[in-house]
Amino acid sequence: MTEGCAARTSAAPAETAGRRPTLAVVGATGVVGTVLLEILSQREDVWGEIRLVASARSAGRKRAVRGAETEVLALSEDVFEGVDVAMFDVPDEISARWAPIAVAKGAVVVDNSAVFRMDPDVPLVVPEINAHAARVRPRGVIANPDCTTLSMIVAVGALHAEFGLSELIVSSYQAASGAGRAGVDTLRAQLAAVAGTELGGQPGDVRRAVGDGTGPFPAPLALNVVPWAGALREDGWSSAELTVREESRKILGLPELRVAATCVRVPVVTTHSVTVHARFENEVTVAQAHEILANAPGVVLVDNPAAGEFPTPADAVGTDPTWVGRVRRSMDDPTALELFVCGDNLRKGAALNIAQIAEFVAAELTTP
Amino acid sequence: MTEGCAARTSAAPAETAGRRPTLAVVGATGVVGTVLLEILSQREDVWGEIRLVASARSAGRKRAVRGAETEVLALSEDVFEGVDVAMFDVPDEISARWAPIAVAKGAVVVDNSAVFRMDPDVPLVVPEINAHAARVRPRGVIANPDCTTLSMIVAVGALHAEFGLSELIVSSYQAASGAGRAGVDTLRAQLAAVAGTELGGQPGDVRRAVGDGTGPFPAPLALNVVPWAGALREDGWSSAELTVREESRKILGLPELRVAATCVRVPVVTTHSVTVHARFENEVTVAQAHEILANAPGVVLVDNPAAGEFPTPADAVGTDPTWVGRVRRSMDDPTALELFVCGDNLRKGAALNIAQIAEFVAAELTTP
Repeated sequence: MTEGCAARTSAAPAETAGRRPTLAVVGATGVVGTVLLEILSQREDVWGEIRLVASARSAGRKRAVRGAETEVLALSEDVFEGVDVAMFDVPDEISARWAPIAVAKGAVVVDNSAVFRMDPDVPLVVPEINAHAARVRPRGVIANPDCTTLSMIVAVGALHAEFGLSELIVSSYQAASGAGRAGVDTLRAQLAAVAGTELGGQPGDVRRAVGDGTGPFPAPLALNVVPWAGALREDGWSSAELTVREESRKILGLPELRVAATCVRVPVVTTHSVTVHARFENEVTVAQAHEILANAPGVVLVDNPAAGEFPTPADAVGTDPTWVGRVRRSMDDPTALELFVCGDNLRKGAALNIAQIAEFVAAELTTP
Repeated sequence: MTEGCAARTSAAPAETAGRRPTLAVVGATGVVGTVLLEILSQREDVWGEIRLVASARSAGRKRAVRGAETEVLALSEDVFEGVDVAMFDVPDEISARWAPIAVAKGAVVVDNSAVFRMDPDVPLVVPEINAHAARVRPRGVIANPDCTTLSMIVAVGALHAEFGLSELIVSSYQAASGAGRAGVDTLRAQLAAVAGTELGGQPGDVRRAVGDGTGPFPAPLALNVVPWAGALREDGWSSAELTVREESRKILGLPELRVAATCVRVPVVTTHSVTVHARFENEVTVAQAHEILANAPGVVLVDNPAAGEFPTPADAVGTDPTWVGRVRRSMDDPTALELFVCGDNLRKGAALNIAQIAEFVAAELTTP
């Protein structure tokens, strides 16, 4: 298959020359898929046909994209016939099985599952940082990073380009929608159970009110924070935490970068926040950091605490950029900066970055 | 006054020998004061008379302490007559004015405001770590640390005693009650406004729903996190962040300790959480850290993620100890540990620590 993909990559431009590429959106009815359709309707339209695909359960439903009601097709080999680019936002096991099928049918796959991200033959792409990497895709697959990494990496990458990053210490404030629709529904149900009560002041009272309704979270999320995301990996680390380490290293091309992350879920619907302690090879100043961040593509600098201005999820949600504020130089280390970063985990953290990668591929396919 | 206090300290044992010391609780009707009365009713009773004091506005109300309804007195010089120990939990300017008056009347003051904490003539005490410091109090005042520092320092101090701390990088998840009753009321009102809605997914929708109702917080707190606590200090740092640095150094007796904190408010009623990246002079192991934390006074170790066990505010609230979990050794630095720590900001973070200090003083005063 690897060879076939390579052949496919080089053959593509000729095939698509003179026409707009065909796009498939696999997982079109999920929480990320829904935002993807919204984003495809908002951005400059580079696509010919857009085919919506989901599980057999969702097939036959209609979804609006680019203003047109479009029927959702059941996932099958046939749906990839004539598809140039296929976006996947589906569970890991579905991506593992179906992405290679889409590639075999001739599509370039932009995949948002965890299965391909650390594969050395799959580029992990954030267009603002390493768009070039998307050109080399031996398996025909380009991976989209995890939403927590994505929520901060554009800002961190811009600073790295100037100062040379040596260490990242990261704590996350992750939104419920990072756990999909079930995460959002669970948080909303819990909030309804605790609002208007005096709960939250006695041991276990929130836990009792929520009962078994913790959904995808291992503890109540309303009036609480939960220091866990993902699955247990080695030595007490969660998959979410090791993902931040592994993906930051791969995206930035720094295989020895020191990274320590602690991932914590907070009762926010959408938009991940991250505190970052970033240590660099060289001395830094806040003024330089401000200038870099103010000019970095995809970054909005909001940093005037005297005027009460700093990013919060409630302001960043639904927007495209990475919001950065609270920029400070460590008082005890002139090579380290502290940052507070917010990014909509469904947009830049998922759908937007997927769309940006897919557009990059579309331009490549249609440019002779 | 300093000399008078010094004389008072040495004269005290004789004066109080053979009787239980008299206690004044100044700020008895506030959110910390309320917990103080609860704690005084629960702990081993070392006190003679307990006198409740508050602003003139609250005078005449009754509060239960040790099972007895007790009338609240208005703050005046007279209320300190015959008082051996006075606990203060009042705004900074009230402490600044009235603590010296209480001392002049013969009381040892245990103060929870910010005004005395960094005074070199005022010890800053966490009994598990530096109880001895409480004995030397040239101004007659012992300061209680800030709740964010207190929420983590018992655990960090235990590790420091074994490994030798060299750096702390801290991110907080601070509860609304850290901002007093107004903080709690604001969060509850905001939760009532957003529960049962679809808010939280569009830019500014939570902000519009909350309107001017942000109370003591500079942005909406429901369905949000707010990267700000306290007042603006130099170079973009908040007072809450610099307080963590200054107080950790003073309590641990490490004036050169490297500390960088980012303080973030979260929609939790009570119990602060903190992620800690702690670097030590020596190599550490998780097994050693577990053993130290499992045996440290005032610490509960809850660290079995395979069984879904880690601390959360909803479980730690209303309890006395510092809860620690998610203990990991940095993959890239064998001298660094990552921790997640929860502490009830009204109990160990305020009232409990005040009570512990006051009991230490009471024992000193009554021991010949």
